[in-house]
Amino acid sequence: MPDLFLALDFGGTKHTIGVIERGAKAWRGHERVFSPPGADASYDLASTTGAARRLLNGARPTAIGVSFGGPVDAARGHVLLSDHVPGWEDFPLRERLEAQFGAPARVDNDGNVGALGEHRFGAGQGLNSLLYITVSTGVGGGWILNGRLWHGADSMAGEIGHTTVDYNGPVCECGRRGCVERLAAGPNIADRAREWLQERPDQGATLRAMVHGDLDAITAQVVSRAADAGDALAAQSLEVAGWALGVGIGNAVNLINPQRVILGGGVTKAGPALWGPLRRVAREVARSQIRLDIVSAALGDDAPLWGAVALAQDVSPQTG
Amino acid sequence: MPDLFLALDFGGTKHTIGVIERGAKAWRGHERVFSPPGADASYDLASTTGAARRLLNGARPTAIGVSFGGPVDAARGHVLLSDHVPGWEDFPLRERLEAQFGAPARVDNDGNVGALGEHRFGAGQGLNSLLYITVSTGVGGGWILNGRLWHGADSMAGEIGHTTVDYNGPVCECGRRGCVERLAAGPNIADRAREWLQERPDQGATLRAMVHGDLDAITAQVVSRAADAGDALAAQSLEVAGWALGVGIGNAVNLINPQRVILGGGVTKAGPALWGPLRRVAREVARSQIRLDIVSAALGDDAPLWGAVALAQDVSPQTG
Repeated sequence: MPDLFLALDFGGTKHTIGVIERGAKAWRGHERVFSPPGADASYDLASTTGAARRLLNGARPTAIGVSFGGPVDAARGHVLLSDHVPGWEDFPLRERLEAQFGAPARVDNDGNVGALGEHRFGAGQGLNSLLYITVSTGVGGGWILNGRLWHGADSMAGEIGHTTVDYNGPVCECGRRGCVERLAAGPNIADRAREWLQERPDQGATLRAMVHGDLDAITAQVVSRAADAGDALAAQSLEVAGWALGVGIGNAVNLINPQRVILGGGVTKAGPALWGPLRRVAREVARSQIRLDIVSAALGDDAPLWGAVALAQDVSPQTG
Repeated sequence: MPDLFLALDFGGTKHTIGVIERGAKAWRGHERVFSPPGADASYDLASTTGAARRLLNGARPTAIGVSFGGPVDAARGHVLLSDHVPGWEDFPLRERLEAQFGAPARVDNDGNVGALGEHRFGAGQGLNSLLYITVSTGVGGGWILNGRLWHGADSMAGEIGHTTVDYNGPVCECGRRGCVERLAAGPNIADRAREWLQERPDQGATLRAMVHGDLDAITAQVVSRAADAGDALAAQSLEVAGWALGVGIGNAVNLINPQRVILGGGVTKAGPALWGPLRRVAREVARSQIRLDIVSAALGDDAPLWGAVALAQDVSPQTG
């Protein structure tokens, strides 16, 4: 019986479960579950572990790795909170999973786990240092320094989403103004486009047509498709996001000068309307002596799930 | 004959030379030399090594450590340039010193060496991670991560002085707008106060009196003394510097979450007019889960010289 690793990725409302054999490149089992409106931590944990048990089909995992979309105390294996789902406050997720599956578990936040996934299996293999950034419902990040995850003194490193790029800018959910997240996260790209469509009736014809005039149907993905189709208003909303990410990345590389910056998450699937300003502004803000190497995540949305595999493997390295 | 270490600190126009025995807490010899107007790299090197030979008095040093106030390729031991003195472009300082003194040398920039000094001998002893920031003619910085200096991929890490805190702000010498350095370095604090005095004839009476009306005599130190004496215009110029440092520090701790932030350099000897806004804004920008521990450098202006001692000791650790 080969070693089996269980990998869990708790997103905002979408959770992914994977089971894989040691050293394999493909999942032995893989499943997605979704939170219905009103779900809480207990519900999400039950549906996720239920899927895991189905995939394991009676086998006991050798180890468990978990990516969680929110702040985590990795040392204690506690989730600190979720911005999306109630009941996760100081939740002993590692302990619960270890009791339920009889195997050692490691839990970390999605920024860190995504960084680990790209370093072990993706666009960062073999590098000594990298900054991973995920841009989707929120903006998170994680560092690999000296070939290992860097957590920081309070397990809070990598919070590029809440660095300030416009001190007098719009107020973020975190209470501060002009965070990268407030300007670059998917829902904010959509909201900004929606507001501009309301203010400027003569603009955004392509974007309006794509949602048949129903502005509530606008998402960052729709904004991105409209920009690709030449809609100037849509492109402008992505440009603001690219600018914010560019300043954030420029500042981050001035401070730490990593070998590579890797961008994942749904928003980064946008085209030149996002990537053009992002690259231009990052280059402008970074000191000229710094080589800038900014690439897309090789593992796409699966970076955290693969990172969870790496976490699990690190708990239980091969012996004998 | 005990081991003797030679420590050199090349500033903009002030250079310090120290000779110390292994393990000692006090200098066996210590000297300052100054660059006259028009000095170049050869002049500064000759005057500095001349002082070193006097202090060594015929003895050969065991190893040499050097702090340089400008970008350095630490791996090759080359100075890349000086913003103040011509002739330092791609200068093989390590090689020159090794040939002249017959001892191994290490060269690094003042931000990194200051970080090392505070970590080994000052306010950062025993810490796993810290950010050191020096605020004087320029704003530099250096990181200790996992108990060791962090240089980054291009030896450019620690450039907090050139992180952008006001993208549409005033143009810095580096060509970018709204860098921390442009708002917080000593000469900029003085320039800003001088401009305001010219624009506002009814303000800054205390500051004016301190320089007997000669606005060209205004330095950051004078601005700081005037602020301490209650001059509101002077305090306002320091407040801008404190704000910029606060945003820069807040962003840096969101990204890396070090155990401590240590501030050195002449400007940080200012009082509450600088430190009040600095602490307030850093706390505001840093995520609430991050503990903020911001302290003054224990070694004051000597942090780079003590760091140079640490560099030298690390080249030649005690054996036997």
